[in-house]
Amino acid sequence: MKKIFLLVILVTMSGPSLADEGMWTLDNFPSAAVKDKYGVDITDAWLETVKSSVARMDSGCSASFVSATGLVLTNHHCTLSCIAQNSTSDSDLEADGFLAVRPEDEVACPTDRLSVLVETEQITSKVAAATAGKAGKEAGEMRRRTLKRLVQECENAAGLKCESVVLYQGGEHWLYKYKRYDDVRLVFAPESDIAAFGGDPDNFNFPRWCLDMSILRVYEDDKPAATPNHLKWRTEGLDPGEAMFVAGRPGRTQRLLTVSDLKFLRNTTIPHWLLRNVELRGRYIQYARSSDEARRIVNAPLQGVENGIKVQRKRLDALHDDALFVQKIAAEQKLRAAVAADPELAAAVGSAWDDIERANAAYLEFREDYLFIEVGAAFQGKLFNYARSLIRAAAEKEKPNQDRLKPYTEAALPRTKQLTLADRPIYPELETLQLSFSLDKMREFLGPDSIFVRQILGKKSPSALAAELVSETDLADPAVRTRLWNADWKTIQASKDPMIRLALAVDEKARALRKRYEDEVEAPTDLAYERIAKARFAIQGTDVYPDATFTLRISYGAHEGWNEKGTDVRPWTTVSELFPRVTGAEPFRLPASWGDAADTLDGSTKFNFVGTTDIIGGNSGSPVIDKDGKLVGLIFDGNIHSISGSYWFDSEFNRSVAVHPEIMIESLRSIYSADHLLQEMGLE
Amino acid sequence: MKKIFLLVILVTMSGPSLADEGMWTLDNFPSAAVKDKYGVDITDAWLETVKSSVARMDSGCSASFVSATGLVLTNHHCTLSCIAQNSTSDSDLEADGFLAVRPEDEVACPTDRLSVLVETEQITSKVAAATAGKAGKEAGEMRRRTLKRLVQECENAAGLKCESVVLYQGGEHWLYKYKRYDDVRLVFAPESDIAAFGGDPDNFNFPRWCLDMSILRVYEDDKPAATPNHLKWRTEGLDPGEAMFVAGRPGRTQRLLTVSDLKFLRNTTIPHWLLRNVELRGRYIQYARSSDEARRIVNAPLQGVENGIKVQRKRLDALHDDALFVQKIAAEQKLRAAVAADPELAAAVGSAWDDIERANAAYLEFREDYLFIEVGAAFQGKLFNYARSLIRAAAEKEKPNQDRLKPYTEAALPRTKQLTLADRPIYPELETLQLSFSLDKMREFLGPDSIFVRQILGKKSPSALAAELVSETDLADPAVRTRLWNADWKTIQASKDPMIRLALAVDEKARALRKRYEDEVEAPTDLAYERIAKARFAIQGTDVYPDATFTLRISYGAHEGWNEKGTDVRPWTTVSELFPRVTGAEPFRLPASWGDAADTLDGSTKFNFVGTTDIIGGNSGSPVIDKDGKLVGLIFDGNIHSISGSYWFDSEFNRSVAVHPEIMIESLRSIYSADHLLQEMGLE
Repeated sequence: MKKIFLLVILVTMSGPSLADEGMWTLDNFPSAAVKDKYGVDITDAWLETVKSSVARMDSGCSASFVSATGLVLTNHHCTLSCIAQNSTSDSDLEADGFLAVRPEDEVACPTDRLSVLVETEQITSKVAAATAGKAGKEAGEMRRRTLKRLVQECENAAGLKCESVVLYQGGEHWLYKYKRYDDVRLVFAPESDIAAFGGDPDNFNFPRWCLDMSILRVYEDDKPAATPNHLKWRTEGLDPGEAMFVAGRPGRTQRLLTVSDLKFLRNTTIPHWLLRNVELRGRYIQYARSSDEARRIVNAPLQGVENGIKVQRKRLDALHDDALFVQKIAAEQKLRAAVAADPELAAAVGSAWDDIERANAAYLEFREDYLFIEVGAAFQGKLFNYARSLIRAAAEKEKPNQDRLKPYTEAALPRTKQLTLADRPIYPELETLQLSFSLDKMREFLGPDSIFVRQILGKKSPSALAAELVSETDLADPAVRTRLWNADWKTIQASKDPMIRLALAVDEKARALRKRYEDEVEAPTDLAYERIAKARFAIQGTDVYPDATFTLRISYGAHEGWNEKGTDVRPWTTVSELFPRVTGAEPFRLPASWGDAADTLDGSTKFNFVGTTDIIGGNSGSPVIDKDGKLVGLIFDGNIHSISGSYWFDSEFNRSVAVHPEIMIESLRSIYSADHLLQEMGLE
Repeated sequence: MKKIFLLVILVTMSGPSLADEGMWTLDNFPSAAVKDKYGVDITDAWLETVKSSVARMDSGCSASFVSATGLVLTNHHCTLSCIAQNSTSDSDLEADGFLAVRPEDEVACPTDRLSVLVETEQITSKVAAATAGKAGKEAGEMRRRTLKRLVQECENAAGLKCESVVLYQGGEHWLYKYKRYDDVRLVFAPESDIAAFGGDPDNFNFPRWCLDMSILRVYEDDKPAATPNHLKWRTEGLDPGEAMFVAGRPGRTQRLLTVSDLKFLRNTTIPHWLLRNVELRGRYIQYARSSDEARRIVNAPLQGVENGIKVQRKRLDALHDDALFVQKIAAEQKLRAAVAADPELAAAVGSAWDDIERANAAYLEFREDYLFIEVGAAFQGKLFNYARSLIRAAAEKEKPNQDRLKPYTEAALPRTKQLTLADRPIYPELETLQLSFSLDKMREFLGPDSIFVRQILGKKSPSALAAELVSETDLADPAVRTRLWNADWKTIQASKDPMIRLALAVDEKARALRKRYEDEVEAPTDLAYERIAKARFAIQGTDVYPDATFTLRISYGAHEGWNEKGTDVRPWTTVSELFPRVTGAEPFRLPASWGDAADTLDGSTKFNFVGTTDIIGGNSGSPVIDKDGKLVGLIFDGNIHSISGSYWFDSEFNRSVAVHPEIMIESLRSIYSADHLLQEMGLE
C-alpha cells in the first residue's frame, strides 16, 4: 500500500503527470502530456469531432452518435427506464430484448432527452462582479439569481439550451450551450440476462461478459434527426497497450473536497445513505419473491439501489483507508501553509477552511429534517414526486424567473414538465412499498415524537398511511397530472387529491428547510470553496482538471490490465470464456437467443475490456475512441478499485470497463439479425 | 462536546472517580468511593445477598430471584425465545401474553438455563506458568488447553459448574463456579404490545412506557426450586437523586481496546455487520407483510436484528466521533510513553501494540472467509446450526477433552446438547429466507468466482439451493437430531441428510480457518493484551474495573435524569402520560387487557425510570437494588447515549432505563389478576 500511496501523492499534488489521471475539459486538454507518454497528437479537429459526436443522456448517462441518421449508442443499463416504460406483464422487453426492424417499430422513451454540447462561455468574472463585497448568505442569494438570469439571457440569445456549470468548486463559472433532442426512441436492446450477465455479484468486477449496449435514435419533427457528426467503428478494437480516450459526462468526483467535508461524508452522509438503502434492497428482494410480476416490476429499482450500495460501500471503504486521510490532510496543510505564507492570498482566502467546518457543524443540526422533508427521503415513489412538482410548478410559475426554485425556471421547466407528465406505468404495490418504507425511516430517524412525524402520521402506521395515499390519489393518471400542471396555484390549493394535500401540507416546512440549507450551509461553503480554488490556482497553476460535474470531459489512458493480489489480469475477455460461467440460474443464465451462440460465434471474439482511463459514474455509455477518432468500445463500468476514484486516482489499480466492438458487431449480426443497423452504421 | 470530553479523559485515565463509572467485580467493589459520594455503606453482607439473589440467563440476559420458591424476574424481551417456542398460529403467547394460574400451568422454556455464581478462584498464575516462555501460537494453544483442563478439574472437584473467565483483557484469569438450573419455566408474560410499547422507534429512547417484564420459575427434580436467597421489593421505588445499584451480567464493553482494534471495528467489523443485517431487516419486514402467520413467525428474529442495528449504528457513530479517537490515542500514547520510560516494563511489554496491529492486518487477509465459512454467516438458520453441532459433537467426542473445540468439552457439552436437541418449532419459510439470504451474502462478499462459493452453489442460485436444503433435510425433527447426537462419527459421515452433507462438506475448510484465526489473530492478540494489562496494572494500579465479560458485576449511581439539547429529562414516567401516546397502530397500540386501564390504574403510578448506573447489553433483566438490598426496579434498556458506553463512559448523558416497581405490581394486581404471584413475592 505504501508504494501506491506515494505515487498518488505525486500525481495529485502536481499538475499533469505520468499517471493517466484526470477528466479534462476540452479547453484545457493535456495534449502535450499525451504526446509525451503515448506519442499521439490530439488535434483541435480531433477534439471538435469528439465534441460533436458525443451526447449526454439527461437521465444521467453518456452516449454517442453512430450513424448519420440519428442512431445513438449507449448502455443497456442507461435505457432501463425506457425499456421498463415500454414493458407490460405480457411484453417484458427487459427479459426478451427489443429490436425495431423498421423505423416505425421504434418506440418512444418518454422520459429521455439527449443534449449535445455546441459551445461554452466563461462567466466567472460576471458572477464575481455580481457577488463582490457580499457576505455568505447574501452572496449565495445573489449568485443563484445571477446564474438564473445569465442562463435565461443565454437561451434568449443563442437559440440553444443553456446551463450554468461550476468548475473547480467555484473557481470558474461557465455557460454550456446545448443542442437538445427531446424525442428519443428505442431501436435495439438485448435481453437483460446477457446485457447484465453476472448481475450484482459481477457489477464493478472484471473479467466480465456483459453485452451492456442499447441503440436509440433521436428524432426531429417526427423524422430521424440528421447527425452528420458521428463516430465510425474500428471493428477490431484496440491493440494491447494502445492509447485510448473516453469522452463522456462523468457525474461527480470529490477529489478537491476539504478534510472536513470528507469526514462529513465518512461519518454521516454515506453511513446514513447505506442504512436506508440497504434495508430498501432487502424489502425489494423479498417483494420480488412474491410473484413473477413483482419481480419484473421491481427489477429496475432493485438494480439501481444495488449499484448504489456497491458504490457507497466502496466509497466508505476508501474513506476508512488511513492512507487516504493522511494524504488529504497533508495536501490541505501544505496548501494552507502556502496560503499563510502569502499575506495577500491569506487575506483573500480568509477563514475558508474553518468556514466549511462551521457550515458542516451547522448542517448537522438539521440535516435529517432537511433530508427527509425537503430532499424527499420521507416520501419515496413517483406519486409524491408528481404531487410536489405539480404544486411547486403552480406556485413558482407565478414568480419572476430569478426568484424561482431552479427546476421551475424557464430554462429548466421543459425537463420538469417532461418528467412530471410522461406516460409511465405506475405500480401501486411498488409505490406503497416505497412510500411505506420511507415513512418508516422518517419515523425512525426523526423520532416518533417529532412534531413533523406526528403531523404526517397522525394515528396511522407508515404502511397504513402509504396504502391509503396510493390507493386514493388520482395522480397515476397522466391526464390528471396534465390538468393540474396547467392549473393555477389557487386551483391546486383547492385540490382534494390526498397526495396533493400531503405535498401542500409539508411544503412550507420543506421550503423553510431548503432556505436554511442554502443560507447556513450552501452559501458559506460555496464562498469558501471559491476562495480555496483561487488559492489553488495561484499556487498550483491552472494546468489541472476540475472535479467531474456531469459535463463533457475527455480522459486518456491505455488498454492495459492490472495486477490483482499477485495475478495479472488480462485486459480483455473472449466469448469462449463466457460459457463455463453459465449456471442457468439468474444472474448467470443466458437468454434463449444465446442458446446456440457457442456454435454461432467465434470463440475468440473479444467481449469486454479494460483500460487505465479515469472515469466515474455518469461515464456509462461513453464511447472509447482511438487516436484517429474511431469508435473502439463502449464504457459500461469500472473495476472495484475505480470506486475510490471519487476521492483520489489510483493509477495502479483503477480501471474502466468497456464492451468490445467485436462482440457488439458479432451479436448484432449473428444473434439478433440486425443487419439493417450494421448497414446504417457502415458495417456491412 | 469539549466539556464532556475532558471529563471523560479524567475518569478514564485515573482510577475510581466522581463519575458513576464502572461495572465492578465483587472482589474489587469501590465501597469507599460510594461512601464518599452517596454516604452509603456497602457491606460484605450486602454484596453476599446480591451475589446469591442474582442470576445469569445463559441465553444472554440477567435475572433475579424474587421468591423463596424459585420465582425469577427478568425482561419480557429476555423470554421471547421461550414465548415463541410455546406459541403456535392458534395460541400466540407473544400477542396475547401468558399467566400460569397454577404451578402445573407453567410451561417449559426448552433452551433456557439459569446460573447463579457461588464462588470464584483466581488462576492467573497457573495460566501464566503453563504459557511461560512460549511464543504467540504455542502460547495460545497452551492457554486454551490449560483452561479446558482447569475447568474440568474444577467441575470434578467442586460439584459446581465451572467456567473460565478472562478479566482485564488477559490481565487476570479466573474460574467462576456456578449453581445451575436447567429446568426453567414461564410463569407470566404480558402482551408484547405493552412489554415493548413503542417498538423499534422507542428502543434505546426515554421517556418510555414499557412493561418489559416476565416471570419465570426454576425447578429442581420437577419441583419449584428452593431459593431462600432472593430480593424483597421496595414497592414505592427510589427517591429522586437516591443512590441505586445494578447487579447483573453486562455482556461486553471494549473500553480497553487499542487504537488499532478500535479502528478495525470502525473500518471493518461494524460496517460489514450493518451491511448484512440491515438488508436482512428489510427482508424480514417485507416477509412479515405476506401474512399474519409470517408476521408472528418473524417477529422475534426481527426484533433481535433491529435491536442489533440500533446498537451497531450508534457504536459506529461513537467511533466516528473525532473526540473519541483523540482521547483513545492520547491515552494509548501516555501509557506507551510510561512503559517506554521503564526499561524493565518495556522489556516485558515488548512490541505488544504493534503485534495487535499486525494481527489485524493478518486477519484482514481472510476475515471474510472466516466469517462466512466458520463463524457461519453463510449458513444462517437453525437447521444448518443443528447439522454443524451434530457433526462436530460426533467428531469431537472421540477426542481427549483438552483437544476438543470449546462447545464440545465436557463442561460445555450439556448446553450444546440442550440447544441442539430442544424441541423448538421450525418454520421452513423462515429457514429458507435466512439461508437464502446468507448464501446470497456469501456470494456477494466472497465473490462468485470464489472456489468455496462455487463448491457450495454449483449451478444453483442461493434461493434455489436454500429451498432445496430446507425442504429435504429431516433435522427439523428432534427425534432425528437425538438419534444423530447419539450416533458415532462414522455413522454421521454416512448420513444422507443434505444439511448434514453440507455441514460435512464445509467442515475441513471451516476448521482450517478457525485454526488460522486462533494462530494468526487470537494468539498474538491475547498475548499482547496480557502484556498491556500488566503494564496498566503496574502504572495505574489495580483499583480499576475490567471490561464487561458476561459475568457478575455491580454498577452504582443515582436515580437522575439528564439534559437533552437544553431540556431536562425527568427521570421517570407515569401511567397517565402513556395514553396520549397510543395511536392504535403498531407499535403504539395497547393490548385489549389495557383497554380500560386508564380507569383502572392510578395515573400517577410510575412506569419507567432512569439512573446514572453504567450498564451495557447483557444487563437486561438486572435488578435495580437500593442501599438496603431491596428490589427497586428492573433494567431493560439504556438511553441512546448509553450505546457509546461500549467504548467510553459519558456520565453526563449515559443513562440506564428500568421498569418501576409501581407499574409491575399495579399491573399484576389490576390488569393481570396475578394475586397469587404477588402473594408469593410477599406483596399482599
